[in-house]
Amino acid sequence: MTNDTLRVIKARRSCRAFKPGPIPRETLEAIVDAGIWAPTGMNNQDVHFTVLQNPEHIKRLSDGIRPALPDAVKERMTSRNGGDPDFSLFYFAPALIVLSGGDTSCAIAAENICLAAESLGIGSCMIGLFNFINQAPEGPALLGELKLPEGSKTGLAIALGTAAKDMPAPERKPGRATWL
Amino acid sequence: MTNDTLRVIKARRSCRAFKPGPIPRETLEAIVDAGIWAPTGMNNQDVHFTVLQNPEHIKRLSDGIRPALPDAVKERMTSRNGGDPDFSLFYFAPALIVLSGGDTSCAIAAENICLAAESLGIGSCMIGLFNFINQAPEGPALLGELKLPEGSKTGLAIALGTAAKDMPAPERKPGRATWL
Repeated sequence: MTNDTLRVIKARRSCRAFKPGPIPRETLEAIVDAGIWAPTGMNNQDVHFTVLQNPEHIKRLSDGIRPALPDAVKERMTSRNGGDPDFSLFYFAPALIVLSGGDTSCAIAAENICLAAESLGIGSCMIGLFNFINQAPEGPALLGELKLPEGSKTGLAIALGTAAKDMPAPERKPGRATWL
Repeated sequence: MTNDTLRVIKARRSCRAFKPGPIPRETLEAIVDAGIWAPTGMNNQDVHFTVLQNPEHIKRLSDGIRPALPDAVKERMTSRNGGDPDFSLFYFAPALIVLSGGDTSCAIAAENICLAAESLGIGSCMIGLFNFINQAPEGPALLGELKLPEGSKTGLAIALGTAAKDMPAPERKPGRATWL
């Protein structure tokens, strides 16, 4: 039993290597729209989407957040990035969407965004580490630049771009469902 | 710009009125599978899916959790259910999937489940109120019946079944995205 949506759900991978070059505006708009159509508790629509496409701005965010990461995370990310201690938190993705609002609503909307991206041939990776922006010395200035809605707090960021390579799907552990 | 996945994302509604009658096993398996293929932080695969199709079991859960709901929630649910104070928390859905594990992972997997269901013609509603099971007098017994993995905590439940009526889409608020 399958259909296009089920195929997209299974094909989505977390992408950590992107080709340079922007995502067409129309594609990015369709991806943001998918987030806007995600369900929210009590229909609060409590998620805000901040879209960044300026490589220098995205780099500034990465450089500002990196010092706030715990050492174990820094080590893991350095190793994931070919030993580069100045790794990009966003894997040099050409576009970044910052989600702010309730944690659950942000997580649900993030999945819509990643699935919409996959359906349009765009790779994506949810970056929960983005939230270390709140512990970074430069955090307040960087958050100010994002012009979030008053009182809104960041949930996560999603790196987006054309995948530079095919990623194999990690196997799913057996026994994850109980049928009563 | 559209495709089947984007259409499904926009067509998904929270469904609160179901036709009686079970979901075919193959359909329900495809829906659970979509949850299993959701991303999890660090690929932890920390979400467990418990599938219930026995109407008496589902009613027992609803009846057991209802007394633990705050008064304001009871009033809202009573009103939503045509004034019935013995409302079903799950809108008498013929199937229920309980997700347990990390909150963010559960939320992400829940959206996959709702989208997979929509793509297969099945209505769905995420029920965050399910977590009041942890405050209910009968909670420990009801949780025991669910046979969750050791140490796992509930995240939310999803009611599933054939929609009894078309639900209009609530309008989306304007200004939910900032393009920098």
